[in-house]
Amino acid sequence: MQNKEFKLIGQRLFNEGLVAGNFGNMSVRIRGGFLITSNGSFLDEEESLRFVSMDGVPETGASSEWRVHYLSYLSGDAEAIVHAHPPFSIAASLLYNEIIPEDSEGKMFCPLIPVVSGEPGTVELAENISKFLISNKVVIAKGHGTFAKGKDLKEAYLLTSIVEHCCRILYYLGGFGGRSL
Amino acid sequence: MQNKEFKLIGQRLFNEGLVAGNFGNMSVRIRGGFLITSNGSFLDEEESLRFVSMDGVPETGASSEWRVHYLSYLSGDAEAIVHAHPPFSIAASLLYNEIIPEDSEGKMFCPLIPVVSGEPGTVELAENISKFLISNKVVIAKGHGTFAKGKDLKEAYLLTSIVEHCCRILYYLGGFGGRSL
Amino acid sequence: MQNKEFKLIGQRLFNEGLVAGNFGNMSVRIRGGFLITSNGSFLDEEESLRFVSMDGVPETGASSEWRVHYLSYLSGDAEAIVHAHPPFSIAASLLYNEIIPEDSEGKMFCPLIPVVSGEPGTVELAENISKFLISNKVVIAKGHGTFAKGKDLKEAYLLTSIVEHCCRILYYLGGFGGRSL
Amino acid sequence: MQNKEFKLIGQRLFNEGLVAGNFGNMSVRIRGGFLITSNGSFLDEEESLRFVSMDGVPETGASSEWRVHYLSYLSGDAEAIVHAHPPFSIAASLLYNEIIPEDSEGKMFCPLIPVVSGEPGTVELAENISKFLISNKVVIAKGHGTFAKGKDLKEAYLLTSIVEHCCRILYYLGGFGGRSL
Repeated sequence: MQNKEFKLIGQRLFNEGLVAGNFGNMSVRIRGGFLITSNGSFLDEEESLRFVSMDGVPETGASSEWRVHYLSYLSGDAEAIVHAHPPFSIAASLLYNEIIPEDSEGKMFCPLIPVVSGEPGTVELAENISKFLISNKVVIAKGHGTFAKGKDLKEAYLLTSIVEHCCRILYYLGGFGGRSL
Repeated sequence: MQNKEFKLIGQRLFNEGLVAGNFGNMSVRIRGGFLITSNGSFLDEEESLRFVSMDGVPETGASSEWRVHYLSYLSGDAEAIVHAHPPFSIAASLLYNEIIPEDSEGKMFCPLIPVVSGEPGTVELAENISKFLISNKVVIAKGHGTFAKGKDLKEAYLLTSIVEHCCRILYYLGGFGGRSL
Repeated sequence: MQNKEFKLIGQRLFNEGLVAGNFGNMSVRIRGGFLITSNGSFLDEEESLRFVSMDGVPETGASSEWRVHYLSYLSGDAEAIVHAHPPFSIAASLLYNEIIPEDSEGKMFCPLIPVVSGEPGTVELAENISKFLISNKVVIAKGHGTFAKGKDLKEAYLLTSIVEHCCRILYYLGGFGGRSL
Repeated sequence: MQNKEFKLIGQRLFNEGLVAGNFGNMSVRIRGGFLITSNGSFLDEEESLRFVSMDGVPETGASSEWRVHYLSYLSGDAEAIVHAHPPFSIAASLLYNEIIPEDSEGKMFCPLIPVVSGEPGTVELAENISKFLISNKVVIAKGHGTFAKGKDLKEAYLLTSIVEHCCRILYYLGGFGGRSL
């Protein structure tokens, strides 16, 4: 049941180019912890999901970014989290500290998208992201990718899709390089 | 029967990148009103279509943009309407008040593509779009997306595809940012 | 048998973004004439192919561009022809009268890609294309799309794919707009 | 078994746009030599794989680039090799002699991507690539495409995907044309 939803959302993430290779990860809160995709897996294939308890103990093989998910569930209201590597969002995050969309959907759903610093895999990045995810639905880790929360994987995926749409539109409006937001 | 055509056209819209996430909506005129996709649904999945009567009463769960479709059926000759979020078209609409294609297909099928103002979901936008759809086959709501009419979903989808093709070509010709049409 | 190959090549053309909507057409020479896709059909669906005799008489419903194919089979050695609408190629054709690839595959397979003038559907364009296809494997109709010949549909499709690859690389090297070839 | 893995990785290469047409090739080291895709085949279809012995004798129909694979297996530790034609990587390779990624994944997995010279199919290119693949996981043949090694096809594909991701991000940061790395 859980596996099926993970696979369906994973396929959508791939089809829209929001992830590639075996990057990205997803999780859903369950009783006493959360289920997360396994390390190095393809998000569009049937998953062997791993359990992480709210004591912070990950099952062997859990995504190496489990700590970002853990701290976000600990401090915030997320019921699901999607981490993806959308290319326009990543490029924008290397140039700006926050993204202000100009398209209608962006203005409505994420009028200000924070960009968060920290090296992938570090406690620093996990703490920064979880802190921002308390009051934001989606953030971009600078040069790395998006983290979106939702009441389920679908909502977290949709926010990821919207953020990439916003950044793509901003790029087409003149190129990130020659443009200050 | 209806559902199958909605799904097939929805899949084409996704495959060409004309919609992403759960955005966009489609409708077909039937006796006494029209059938429209449900709110928040994925256009490439089997739909639970909703009926809107020509008295302007939408069935629960109808797309939140049902009013644009309603007014367009009321005042014009559309038999089907497709609303999509094609990225090149949206970017172009933020910079120009009308789009003049330079490619052969654009010149033949939509030599002038109007850009229409108004916030998504408002009566103002619905009225503007329906007014333009009387004498135009396709318009772009500024920063939001395309609305195309046709004798069936296929024709409305094809016009959507052509508009995005036109805007993509214009973009490749030098970038929207550094270019006046 | 014929239908299956048309469908497989049509799917590849769609998957690579070389055609969209119901544009593009394909044909294969057979005894006494050639089989061509039908007017307004989707190239990735099972086709109801139409016969055009070498007397120049098209079966009802043949692609409206049958004349380009007809004249090309009449004057040249094509065994199959693919016409597609690849966006980078179309944009490049609006700016240049011939395309000189800079990538290895382009240099090897199509070191000079001619750009041909004429309005789609006219005898003028059909004559220009058929003339160029005598000594070239692939040409671009300005603002319209590619015409490639081959010993079969596969070869004609591969040349189409290479031309778009070449034009895409040229675009990434600096944008068509700010660049003279 | 081997064929199935070749096909699955081939499909991922296509879906991400890392190869198109019938370009690219893949190989896996086995006892006494290696298995390589056949010349002119589509990487996403069931393959008729060909054997090349470590004496340098290719089975008829082996990919015309078998020599690059052969020399790389001879001098290095590759267990599998993937050669693809990713467009952003190819464009970058025409402008720079080495690529320095700015995104997190690039910095982690391939902080310096060498660009190697030589005409496709020549011994010169094969020697250059095999030499660089001793101490690098992935290189780009200038204007031609990527060569990545791994402990299996999956790892070699993932490196290919990362390199294209890196080059795509660099392009979005300002266009290759107006930018020195």
